[in-house]
Order: sequence, then C-alpha cells, then structure tokens
Amino acid sequence: MRKEKDLLGEKEISNEMYYGIQTQRAMENFPITGYKPHPTLIHALAIVKKSAAEANMEVGRLNKKIGQAICQACEEIIQGDLHQYFVVDAIQGGAGTSMNMNANEVIANRAIELLGGTKGEYLKVSPNTHVNMAQSTNDAFPTAITIASLKLASGVLASLNHLVEALKEKEAEFDEVLKMGRTHLQDAVPIRLGQEFGAYAKVLSRDIKRIENSLEDLKEINMGATAVGTGLNADPKYIEVVVERITKNSGIEFMTASNLVDSTQNTDAYVSVSAALKICAVNLSKMANDLRLLSSGPKCGLNEINLPPVQPGSSIMPGKVNPVMAEVVNQVAFQIMGNDHTICLASEAGQLELNVMEPVLTFNLLQSLDILRNVTTVFADKCIKGITVNEERCKKLVEGSIGIVTAINPHVGYETASTVAKEAIKTGRPIKEIVLERGILSEEELEKILNPYDMTRPGISGSELLK
Amino acid sequence: MRKEKDLLGEKEISNEMYYGIQTQRAMENFPITGYKPHPTLIHALAIVKKSAAEANMEVGRLNKKIGQAICQACEEIIQGDLHQYFVVDAIQGGAGTSMNMNANEVIANRAIELLGGTKGEYLKVSPNTHVNMAQSTNDAFPTAITIASLKLASGVLASLNHLVEALKEKEAEFDEVLKMGRTHLQDAVPIRLGQEFGAYAKVLSRDIKRIENSLEDLKEINMGATAVGTGLNADPKYIEVVVERITKNSGIEFMTASNLVDSTQNTDAYVSVSAALKICAVNLSKMANDLRLLSSGPKCGLNEINLPPVQPGSSIMPGKVNPVMAEVVNQVAFQIMGNDHTICLASEAGQLELNVMEPVLTFNLLQSLDILRNVTTVFADKCIKGITVNEERCKKLVEGSIGIVTAINPHVGYETASTVAKEAIKTGRPIKEIVLERGILSEEELEKILNPYDMTRPGISGSELLK
Amino acid sequence: MRKEKDLLGEKEISNEMYYGIQTQRAMENFPITGYKPHPTLIHALAIVKKSAAEANMEVGRLNKKIGQAICQACEEIIQGDLHQYFVVDAIQGGAGTSMNMNANEVIANRAIELLGGTKGEYLKVSPNTHVNMAQSTNDAFPTAITIASLKLASGVLASLNHLVEALKEKEAEFDEVLKMGRTHLQDAVPIRLGQEFGAYAKVLSRDIKRIENSLEDLKEINMGATAVGTGLNADPKYIEVVVERITKNSGIEFMTASNLVDSTQNTDAYVSVSAALKICAVNLSKMANDLRLLSSGPKCGLNEINLPPVQPGSSIMPGKVNPVMAEVVNQVAFQIMGNDHTICLASEAGQLELNVMEPVLTFNLLQSLDILRNVTTVFADKCIKGITVNEERCKKLVEGSIGIVTAINPHVGYETASTVAKEAIKTGRPIKEIVLERGILSEEELEKILNPYDMTRPGISGSELLK
Amino acid sequence: MRKEKDLLGEKEISNEMYYGIQTQRAMENFPITGYKPHPTLIHALAIVKKSAAEANMEVGRLNKKIGQAICQACEEIIQGDLHQYFVVDAIQGGAGTSMNMNANEVIANRAIELLGGTKGEYLKVSPNTHVNMAQSTNDAFPTAITIASLKLASGVLASLNHLVEALKEKEAEFDEVLKMGRTHLQDAVPIRLGQEFGAYAKVLSRDIKRIENSLEDLKEINMGATAVGTGLNADPKYIEVVVERITKNSGIEFMTASNLVDSTQNTDAYVSVSAALKICAVNLSKMANDLRLLSSGPKCGLNEINLPPVQPGSSIMPGKVNPVMAEVVNQVAFQIMGNDHTICLASEAGQLELNVMEPVLTFNLLQSLDILRNVTTVFADKCIKGITVNEERCKKLVEGSIGIVTAINPHVGYETASTVAKEAIKTGRPIKEIVLERGILSEEELEKILNPYDMTRPGISGSELLK
Repeated sequence: MRKEKDLLGEKEISNEMYYGIQTQRAMENFPITGYKPHPTLIHALAIVKKSAAEANMEVGRLNKKIGQAICQACEEIIQGDLHQYFVVDAIQGGAGTSMNMNANEVIANRAIELLGGTKGEYLKVSPNTHVNMAQSTNDAFPTAITIASLKLASGVLASLNHLVEALKEKEAEFDEVLKMGRTHLQDAVPIRLGQEFGAYAKVLSRDIKRIENSLEDLKEINMGATAVGTGLNADPKYIEVVVERITKNSGIEFMTASNLVDSTQNTDAYVSVSAALKICAVNLSKMANDLRLLSSGPKCGLNEINLPPVQPGSSIMPGKVNPVMAEVVNQVAFQIMGNDHTICLASEAGQLELNVMEPVLTFNLLQSLDILRNVTTVFADKCIKGITVNEERCKKLVEGSIGIVTAINPHVGYETASTVAKEAIKTGRPIKEIVLERGILSEEELEKILNPYDMTRPGISGSELLK
Repeated sequence: MRKEKDLLGEKEISNEMYYGIQTQRAMENFPITGYKPHPTLIHALAIVKKSAAEANMEVGRLNKKIGQAICQACEEIIQGDLHQYFVVDAIQGGAGTSMNMNANEVIANRAIELLGGTKGEYLKVSPNTHVNMAQSTNDAFPTAITIASLKLASGVLASLNHLVEALKEKEAEFDEVLKMGRTHLQDAVPIRLGQEFGAYAKVLSRDIKRIENSLEDLKEINMGATAVGTGLNADPKYIEVVVERITKNSGIEFMTASNLVDSTQNTDAYVSVSAALKICAVNLSKMANDLRLLSSGPKCGLNEINLPPVQPGSSIMPGKVNPVMAEVVNQVAFQIMGNDHTICLASEAGQLELNVMEPVLTFNLLQSLDILRNVTTVFADKCIKGITVNEERCKKLVEGSIGIVTAINPHVGYETASTVAKEAIKTGRPIKEIVLERGILSEEELEKILNPYDMTRPGISGSELLK
Repeated sequence: MRKEKDLLGEKEISNEMYYGIQTQRAMENFPITGYKPHPTLIHALAIVKKSAAEANMEVGRLNKKIGQAICQACEEIIQGDLHQYFVVDAIQGGAGTSMNMNANEVIANRAIELLGGTKGEYLKVSPNTHVNMAQSTNDAFPTAITIASLKLASGVLASLNHLVEALKEKEAEFDEVLKMGRTHLQDAVPIRLGQEFGAYAKVLSRDIKRIENSLEDLKEINMGATAVGTGLNADPKYIEVVVERITKNSGIEFMTASNLVDSTQNTDAYVSVSAALKICAVNLSKMANDLRLLSSGPKCGLNEINLPPVQPGSSIMPGKVNPVMAEVVNQVAFQIMGNDHTICLASEAGQLELNVMEPVLTFNLLQSLDILRNVTTVFADKCIKGITVNEERCKKLVEGSIGIVTAINPHVGYETASTVAKEAIKTGRPIKEIVLERGILSEEELEKILNPYDMTRPGISGSELLK
Repeated sequence: MRKEKDLLGEKEISNEMYYGIQTQRAMENFPITGYKPHPTLIHALAIVKKSAAEANMEVGRLNKKIGQAICQACEEIIQGDLHQYFVVDAIQGGAGTSMNMNANEVIANRAIELLGGTKGEYLKVSPNTHVNMAQSTNDAFPTAITIASLKLASGVLASLNHLVEALKEKEAEFDEVLKMGRTHLQDAVPIRLGQEFGAYAKVLSRDIKRIENSLEDLKEINMGATAVGTGLNADPKYIEVVVERITKNSGIEFMTASNLVDSTQNTDAYVSVSAALKICAVNLSKMANDLRLLSSGPKCGLNEINLPPVQPGSSIMPGKVNPVMAEVVNQVAFQIMGNDHTICLASEAGQLELNVMEPVLTFNLLQSLDILRNVTTVFADKCIKGITVNEERCKKLVEGSIGIVTAINPHVGYETASTVAKEAIKTGRPIKEIVLERGILSEEELEKILNPYDMTRPGISGSELLK
C-alpha cells in the first residue's frame, strides 16, 4: 500500500493500482451502475492526453523526458493495456473530473515507472501539472467523448450500410413476387415484395445520411477552452498544435471550435447524434414489426415470408420458431429511444458555463452507438439475408382479394367492377373466377391486366388493351 | 336539412353546412380533443386539391367546367374562407381520410354552388370522383402536411433569426462587461457577459441550420402514390404535372419522391423536423434557465442582469416582478419535447404500406412549429432586447472571488498564489486587496493582469509583464 | 374604453371586457398556443374564489356586501357564464399568476356591476384586496388545478368502467369461441376469444384502481399556504374554514395539506395521476393493436373478428372499411404518453419554494384526462360493443394449426405426437385428419380432447380418457 | 469439447461450460449490450426452478432423485455459485427463452454432475423435460422478474427511508435557521431552512408509499399459465404447490394471479413500478437542483448552505469543490426517466397472448432499482448528513431583503409599508434600518414581528402587538 494525499486529506492505495487518490475517492463516491468507462472512451482520452503532451512539448512548456514518458504511457492505453485501472463508474458527478483524473493518475504512474520511479512519486510526473497540463476536464473530457463517438459512429455507419446492402439484395431477389399491399392492416392493392424491401433500404439510406450529417458538428473540439471556454492560461500556439495532434493521433479531421465558450457549455452536438440514432431506431422498429407480421403463422398468420430460424422457440411447443432477431431489433430500438430521452434531459440541465451532466449523457450515447452497430450487424446476417418468400401463398392471397378489382376497374367501368366486387365479398369466390365466368374479360386480357409489374407502377395496368 | 348517403347508409346534414355525410360521421366518431384542423393545414390541403384539379384538367381527365369550379372553391379556402366547415377533430382515426373527405366535401359543395347547383347535388361535382380524382388520402394528406409544415417552419426560422439577432446585439452591448463565470454553479474564472450572449446566439445558429437541414427531406412529396405507393391507376403524366402545380401554388419547390412506396409508408422526415425542433427547445430551455438564474434576486440572488418587467409578479408581495417570459420559454420547450415523444411513438407505429397515426403526428408537429415561432418572437422582443446589466454588481463579484487568482498565478508562482487564495478564503477579503497589501504586485500590474479582455481570451492575461 | 393602471403603467381596456389590465398584459405577453383555459379549470377557480370569499366573511375580514357580490359573480362563472373573458393562454409564464388575476379581475368587475358600479371601479371591489384576499396564486391556482383534475378524473373513471363493462359483455358473449392463441405472432395453443376479452377487462380494472389510488394525494390542498407555504399573514381560522367551503362547493372531500411548504413546491401528486393515465394508455394501445390485428383482412389477414364499420375507409378502394376507432385509441395513447413526458419535465423543473411550470403541466394533465374520457367512451360504444366474431374462421385456423398437438400429447405420447406434427407441417394437412386416418384416436376421443373449455384451462384436456 | 444437438442442428460446447447448445446459440444471436443477466435475476430464476422441481416432485410427476439433484443445483446458484455460466445478453429476442434455457441447461448439467454423470448427458437430467417441467418461459421468466424486482425494491425502500431519516435530522437541526424563501428564483418571504428539509422529507415519504403501493400488483404471479395463460397441460395441484414453494423459497408472500391469461400478456405491473421510481427520480432531481443552488458560490452564489466536500473539484482551479453528489443524483434521475420511457415502449409493444419485449423491460427496470438504491445511499451518507448552514449569510440576506416588509405590513398599514419598501429598493438600505430610523416601530416590536417562527407559520407575525 502507498499513501496519497490531496486537498481533502490522505488515503491508502494498493501498490498494484496505477490509479491514485482521486480515483479512489471517486470509486467510493459513485458506486452507482457498476459499469466501468467504455473502452473506446478510455482509448479516446488517452489520445487526448498524448496529443496534449505532444503539443505542450512542442510549445516548450513540457520537459521532453517527462513528455515522452507520458506519450508512451498513453500509447499503451491506446493499444488496449491498463484499461483495468479505469474504474470510475460510468455515471459520476463532477462533469467527468473523476474520469479525467483517473486517466491523469494512471498515465502519471505508468510514466513514473517508465522513468524508473515507483507509483506515487508524483514529483517525477504529476497527474495535474504534467499529464493535465493546459487542460481542464471541461475541454479534455468532451474532446474524448467526441473522438469516441465518432469512432463508434463509423462502425454504426458501416453496419447500417451492410444492412442496406442486404435489404437491396432482397429487393432484387423478390422483385417479381406479387403480394397484397395492406393499409390499416386491411387488404389494399397489390405490391411486389421487392418494393417493400426497397422501401426499407431507402428509409435506412436516409438514416445513414442523417447520422452522417449529425456527426459534422462533432468535428469542432474545444481543446484550449480550459475552465469556462475563455481559454485563460492556454497558450494560443498550444491550441493550434493540440488539434493537429488529435487529428493525427485519432485519424479524424478535427478543428478548434469557432466559439470556445459556446462549445464548452452546449451539448447539442451529442443530442443531435442521438436524435439521428433515434430516428433510425424508429425506422428499424417499424421494419422489424413488419417482418414479424409478414412472417406470422405458420398456419394462423400472414405467412408470406419466412425468417431464418436461429434458435428453438419454445420448450413447451415443439417445432415453434420465433422471430427473435426482429424482436431484438425492436428492443434495441426502445433502448435507444429511452437513451435519447436521458440524453435530452442531461443536455437541458446544462447551466451557465458548463454542462455537468455529461457523464450520463456519454454513457447513453456510447451505448446507443454500440447496440445499434451490434444489432444491425446480426440483423443483416442472421435475419435479412436468410429471408425466404412463400410465393404461392402470396399469389393466392392476391388472387383471393377484392383489391385487384381496382386494377380491373378502368377496363370494365366502375358499375361492372362494383358488381363483381360485391359478388366476391358475398360468396367468397375470387374476383378472377367471377370475371371469367361472366365473360367480362378473357383469360388473356386478365393476364395482361394482372401483370405484377404493371399493377405495381404508376399508370393503368394493361393500358395497351384500352387503345 | 338534406339527406346524404354513403356505403354505410343515410344521414341528415344541415343545409347550411358545406361538409357532407363523411364529415358528419367523423364528427360523431371522433369527439376527442375538441381542436379543429390547423388553419395552415386546411390551406395546404386546398392547395393540393387545386393543384390536382389543374393537373387532371391538363391531362384531360377532368371536365374543364367542373375543374374550374373546384379550383375556385379551393382558392376561396386558400384565401381563408370556408374554414369553419373543417370540423373534423385534430386527432382522428383513418390516417386522415376524414380530413381529406372533409376537404373533398366542402370543395364539392362550394363548386356545386358556383355551378348554380345546391349543396348535395354530387352528380354535378362529386367529392370522390372529381375533387379526389387520381388521389388517395395516402398521398394527398401527407402532401398537405408537408406543405403546412414547410410554411410554418419558415415562420420558425424567421423568428429564430430574429432572436439570434437580438442575442447578438446583446453580445455587442455587453462585450466589455466582466463577470464571474460559473461551472457546477460554483465560482470559476471571469468571463464577459457578451461572451455568454454570444454563446447563446451561436448555439441557436446551429439550431437554425439543423432545422433547415431537416426540412430538405420534406421537399419530396408522394402525389401519385395512390393507395400503397405503387401509383396504381395514376397517370404518369398527371404525377409530373401535379408536382409542378403544387410548387407553383405553394411557392415551395417540390419534387416527386424517388421511391413512392417508401414515401407513402415512412414518416421519418417529420420525425426529423420534430427532432430538430426538440434540440432547439432543449437549448432554449437551458438559456432560459441561465437568464432566470442570472437575474435572480434582486437582493438574495445573483442579480447580475435584469430582465425587463412585463407584468406584476405577485398580488401578495408588492413590487415583485418575475421572469415570466423566460418561464414561458421553458414551458414551450417542455411541450415540444413531449410532442416529439408523441411524434416518435406515432412514427414507430407505422405498419406495412402506411402509417395510420399521421393525424396525431401532424397535430403535434404543427403545434410544435406554432409555439416555437410564437415563443421565440415574444422572447426576443419582450425579454432579450430589454435585458440590462448590473455592471457594478458583476464587477464586485469578480473582485471578491477567489477565481481571479488563476489569472495572477502565472505572474507570481503557484506557491504565492495559493497562499493568497487561502488567506482570501479564510478572511473573506478580496484577492486584490491582499496582493496589494503584501506588495506582491503593484496596482498598475494588477490592472494589466485583470484586464477584462485579456482575462477572457486564450493566453496569459497581462503576458506583456512576463517579458 | 377605460383606463386601468398597475405598477408597470396604464393600459386601455375595452369597456365590454370584464377582465382588466393584468389580463390584458398577459394576452400580449403570451400569444403562445391560442388555447384558452380549460372550462373545468375556470369553473374550479371560481369555486376557490367563492370559497375564499365565504371564509373571509366568516372570519370577519371581508365586508359582507362585497363578499356576497363576489360570491354571486363566482356563482355565475360556476354556472358557465362569463367564460369568454378568461382569455389567458393555456401556456403562460408566472406560475398561473395571469390566470389567477384574470379570475380576480373578471370576478371583481362583475361584482362591481352587481353592486351598481361600472367596470374598473376597483375601489368598490378590488381584484387583489378583496377577490384575492388571503390568497396567493401559489395556493389558489394549484387548488383549482386539483379540483379540476378530480372533476375530470371522475369522468374518466366512469368512462373506463363503461368500457370494462362492454369488454366483460364480450367476454361472456365469446366465452365458447375457440381460437388460436399466438405468442411472438406465431401460432401457439388454443384459447377462447372470451378469455382474450376477459384479459382486456382485467388489465383495465387494474388501471381504474391505479387511477383511483393516484387521486388520493390530490385531496390535500394548500389553501392558506400563501407565498411559500409558511402561511404568512393567513389567519389559521380562515385556513380551516376555506377547506370546508371548498369541500362543500365542489362536492369533493378535501383537507388541508399536512405540510404546506411541501404542498406548495412539489407537484408529484399531478405527476402520479399522469403516470396512472399513461399506464392505462399503454394498455389501451396494446389492446387496440390486438383488435386491429385480429380484424385484419378481410381476405389477406387474420380476420378472426370484425370491428363494426363506422365510416367508409377509402375513396380509391371501394368497400374498404378501416379500424378507425382502434386507430384513434392508439393515437390518444401516444398523446397521453407524450403529455406525461411534458408533465415530468415540468415537475422536475420546480425550484425551491415553487414550481413555476404549473401552467404547462396543467394544460397537459387536463388534456390527458379529457381525451382519455372521450376516447374510451366512443371506443366502447362505437367499437367494442359491435364486435362480432368469424367463428368458422377461428375454428378452421385452430383445426389447421400444429398447436393442438400439444393437447393430444399427453394421450398419445411425445413420440407419436411429434410424428403427427411433422407430417402435418410437411403436408399442410390438419392434425385431426392425420390422427383419425392413422387410427391413433377415435373421433369421439378427439372431440373430448379438443373440447374448447378443457383445452383452455389448467390441466390435461380430456383427462377423463386417461383414467 | 462436447457435441450438443437441438432441432436446428449440432454445436460444439466447451466441456468446462455448464450451459448448453441453446445458450450457445443465444450468445451468437445476441451480441448486443455485452451486459450479462442481473445477478438478482439469476438468483430469482433459480428460486423459480427449485420451487417448480419441488412442486413437480410433490405432485408426483418428477422423479425424486432427479428432482433433488435439480434442487441442489438451484440452491448452489441461489448461494451465488455458477453465475458465470449465465451468459446470455441482457437484451435478447425470444421473450426470455434464451435466459430461461440458459438456466435450464446450467441446472441440468450441474444436476447431472451431482448424480455422477458428465455434462451433456441429458438423458439423466433434461433441461426441458425435467428442469423446465410444467413451465413455459412465459410463466417462469416473468415470475423470476417479479421476484428479482421485489428483492431489489426492498433495498430501494430501505435506502429511501435512510435518506428520509437523514433529511428529517436536518429538518430538526435547521429548525431555527431563518432564511429567504424564493419563488421564481426571486426573493419572496422568509422561511426556515428546517422547513425546506422537511418538505424534501415529506415528498420522499410519499414516494416511498407510492413505490410500496406499486409493488402490490407484483405479488400475483402466473406460474402454471404455460404458453398463453390457459394453463394447458399444467396440473392444477402443481399450480397450487408451486406458488407456496416460491413464497417459502423467496421469503415473499406470492399468490397465483386471478386471471392467468391477463397475467401472461400484460406487463402493467412492471410499468407501474417504473412509474413510481420515475416520480421519485423527478423529486430527487428537483431536490438535488435546490441543494446545488443553495450551496452555489462560495463568493458569487447564494452560499446559504455547504455540501460536504468529497473530492477536489478542479485541476485547473485550486480549492474548487463541486456538488458532485447532488450532480450524480440528477444524472441517476435522468437515467431512470429514460429507462421508464423504454419500459413503456416495451410494454406497449405486447401483442396478443404475450409481451416478447420483456428482456429490455427487465434490463431497464432492474437497473432503475439498482441505481436508485445506490445513489440514495451515498446521497444520504456523503451529502445530506454533512450539510452545514451559513447562518449569518442567511440572516443577512433576510434582513437585506424587501420581502420582510410583508410581515410588517399588518402592523403599519399598506401605505407606510409601501413607502418603506420603495425607499429600500431605491437606496439599497435594509427595511429594518429604515423602519427604526423613521421611528415606525421600536427595536423591540421589530424583534417580535421578525421572530423566525412567527414569520414562518400561518397567521400574522407578532400578532400579540395588535391586541
């Protein structure tokens, strides 16, 4: 054990631990969720710390030996080491100060070791003076959130694109499958199954664009803002260099926010990303609902399509297979919608020069990004790609429906069409059968009118017959 | 009274009424909120109906005499007449069918009159055959929502710009007012009041951009989609013409959606507008909270600024004036956040080829647009513009704070600075006084270091002294 | 026109208007929603004002002549007159001060008239000194909200009970109708349609109980709290009498809150009512979804039940009838869920001795109560009561399903049951047919096993065969 | 490695693992959040499994040797062992089937070992036939959720009571501290600090009662419902016994739901618990906001109270201490509010005989319970208990305020009071000073009128002077 000290007093810290007294306090103060910081956030914070050390060395404020040790410690964290010493709860008071100090302490202690010292010898490398040099929690932490969000978002975009591709393949595969369209869950007029999948692909494409747009505002970071955004005591040259280094170290093109005061107190950029994710969640949930509906049955439901079975559905009912992949999509959507709510509440609670609710905001935002990426990946691979159609069933439903009378209408007149429809409703016999029986149209004419493509694009189906 | 008939039977309608049997049924079925349709939505639906009639005439499907009567009836509605006959509740089942039929019936009956007939003579002009020609509720109604949303949104943008201008004026006016910056509601370091207003202007400028972006997807309409988006029985030429006419009649550049099936079932474009409004609401609420905080007092609060009094605040406590304009901003923000929730729920509930929850979605979206425009207008005019500052109070607080020791720090060293800070905390005496008393810095030096501008921009305040 | 004056200056008021200068200011300050105060809230506020006048007379503080004129003016409002002069927007700043002053001014001016004076002669009857005597907005307004909420809630409870009765009638009517039960939208095991309606009735019965429970906390009012709940300058005798009078005038048993400070600043009692309404909304929405699903079709859906047609469903597809009453239930549910969100936000925004966000909270709470009462009434009368069942269809689906093999299982052994199930899945032939064909069970035995009641209650169906 | 088989095929499972093929599939299907099941849920599910085995043995369906091995395996899990083999993601499709099968497999394999077999020898003990005997996921899983919720809720109630006690101690401690009351954040009239803490204690007491009430509906469980609530193939005797065993094994008094169909498909009981937690969260957030406001400063804020420092607040601003415990309360409140949103969405998405969204609902509900218990514990111990008051500051603010003129009013008349108030506003001098200087009241009279207790309870302060 070693003793550490801060302005509130002393504490004993296990010598194995790279973190120090402030982290120890934070663990005691915030035993809330049991969730540790997101690894991507740890990674991002290490990038911030490394970049700051580089910039401080470059402007001549930080001793090279110390700075290089700090950089190496950061690099180890970036490579995935030392993560077990990031132990502050995901939901914490203090606007991220504890998370920031956790990083400062771990980096300092590792740097001390690299310089041949033992943990706790903060005169060698100080968490505050050296690792946190020219930074405040209020600029370093939001910058890390931003980097982490963008990193995770790129995974989300890749996964959504993957899903869109899977949907487009189904759009093509099912292009010729005529089926009943439904509005209000009531029989409407025919549509092709490919069109339905095309609509799913289309709306998700808009989601991708919306998410991409929402990420733009994240590219302005507030390094150099220090405490309230005025940049007090931050060297202008440092501000310039640190953003270049963060760009280089993260591989993401950042720039310094044009208004650091605004950038330090407002969290709208995160809320905007969350909103874009939420809209995508809403769309995914609608799609999952549709797929569960279309695959309902097998005997007592719509049964137009089959979702690939991925696990037995019931211990009590042998043979039952459930649409579990669609169900997990719904649930992730609900989670993201709830997360968005929390994020809005946290954002609204900003006061004056700072928003101290950033930890809970971050926890929810990173979770939303994670689960959206995860769920869309398995949804594409384990559900969408394996969907098959019960083409005969689809055809039978169309032919048995009243809805196709709408297509016949222009060819036989409203009066005749209505009479046929009424007869069909009354007797339950198919429209086609009645039309043929009564000699209203010939088999050949009917075939032209009821052509799947013609019936499902603008214009009158079988219009060549009218000429 | 006249008798009207539909497929469910007969009903008596008062002869004074321009609406018909389907509207009558809807009134009986949906006595829900008591709110009638939004006037801008009525206006927009008349534009849709007029444009469709023009397009139908142009493609030769609609008799010119009938068509022109329809157009004239629509024009009267556009000019604000006949709105009292739009009586269907804002929240209604049927995906807007009742609202659409209300319009069809009013327009038909007015057109009949213009052609010399009496209301109810639907052989002259039929609500379905003529007024609704080539349309479905599922394309006409969403198109009207879109037009109405864009019209109201342009008012919102104008009003937000007006508010941003008011804030920027205050940014300039208060540019030299030094005050205490606060993080965690705890004293931090100085900032200028102008910077605070600049941050408000900045975040709202992003809101304006976000709202503008969100409107882009609304510019694709689905006229010609008919029932499920396949365009069955819709003449391609008509589809082309009707969008041109809607563009001309509304003054907004529209185009036909590239995927009509998608466009008919998905409501993400509205959700996206609502999300942008909600983010703006979150930001406005934070700003209103700040203003209420900064103007708290007059004796027992921060009392740094004064909001203009607009009404007596209390009957029991004479002289009390409350920040009512800021309070109404908070409340509108909460309403918009709740509305956004409803809108998401409605959007998620779309099924297969249609979202039947559009009426409640529309009710909330148009309300959000309305109240955001209204509140930002009065907030700018009756609150922001009249804000004054208690400059002496601000100055006194800064001088009495410990925070300015941060500025002195680089000039005297951390050790000395800390000693002064401790003394100040212990005795309650101002930092400046102690520094002067101990001869640590001269009056002149202090003045340079505590220069309002220098202290509130990146770099070391009074850095020329260090050379 | 007459001139009126307050501490901010003078204004001209039309002589026709019973309201005065503070109302006039409020109209100018808050042109937000365009919605006037809820009539039940106006009614409730008049009860508060009358009761306060009575109590003030009784404790000897208010001149009898003036007091009686005030009471008569209040009584007119209670009877439904003068409501047109309550013109302050539903969403307003000032914690209801404007609404309270609107009432004070209308009552004062009407009382002045009753005493032979002309409007504006406030020396005769003063809005503040006399009408508002011993009150603060902070006690009078919440008390009025409470009265209004309880009045509307009793309508909600009556309407929900009415709906439960309608559901129970269907439970009885459909008690013998065997149909397929579905989990995950996949065929499960049989259930009786009556059981489904019984479950709906049951969950709504819990909702009724929950709403009733939530109303209990509303029965503590804070009259006498004055500004911050300490009761400064409120005569203890007055506090005692006023609650008796409110009880008498409203017909609702009220008592004085045991902690007036708490009662003045906390709004949890409203939030709790809204939460109970929201849970009910969630349950109603699930039920409406079920009914829309079960009635989907008629040809291409489940088509087990028929919702009564209440209006034509489509202009483009003749004969189409949509589940519009269920759809409006969903939408009202979404509205109530969104309103609950706004209410929570407003409640959370209370600060120190008061919650100034009460107007928006009230607007949403009263709206939720209104629309829940309205929609459940028409839902019961125009939908539930008219539901019919397609018994043959239900029977056919059960017989064609694999699910009934679960009932046969205990009689034939798992091995045999599985073989039959596999054969049924493979060939599409009904279980029953295969069982009979193979002589596994006799027709008579099967009838006993597949007995609707036996199959749908705990235990083994046809267990007498096993003895 | 061992091979396991189910109806979809074979998989290899590591021989170390107690779980089997269905768990393995679930891990592959649902790599969503990375969060494993809540330990209390694992514990509760083991209680369900043990109780079912006991009941099955008692009704003679389950072989004693097998049954006892199952019971012992369950007991080990109840004691906290084997939890590492519960590996299915917290958010999963299938309505909890995977979680249920995970339990069935782990218990079966452990029971097999106890009987001397090796993992995978399911003929000895089958996850389905033996461990899941007479159960369905649809009754076993919700019953486990219920047990877990009640267990966690009792911790929440204990912790809230602890917090209420801490607040009541402060109520007593600060009973004599006079301070300014504020409405609209504007100075109102005096109040005692003890009254403020009393109001916090009071509202939380209502929360405790509300949470307790909400738990009542959880005490009806649906064991024996099997697939859809009809209880098909569930022995009535078993149903009776299993609930007794669950009561005994959990220590919580349960009964069988009066309507199993309702109980299987509706999740309102959980939503109701979440709603009660959310209301508590709203109240806690308001309280945390108040405490942050009252302790703002130290120099530039209200500074009436001091929250105990628990960690250094800033690396850049030495000496700064932030209200981190209050901040974490706000954040937990936001999380619970968002969780409630997710829970409502999940509940609304139930369809027909089942709600398949229970996993996400459970994840959020258990998290809300956890974090509410955790945060209230540390809030009481590390914040509330250590709060101190700056009594002199409070007194000075009261004396400098205009608000006390309200107390003087009844003694000197409105006219005189107003003149004094105006003078005080104009000159900034205290009311008391002016009153004394002008000889309006004597020092002794003033002392009586401005008596802290008299001024803060109903009635006229110093009323004995009026006699």
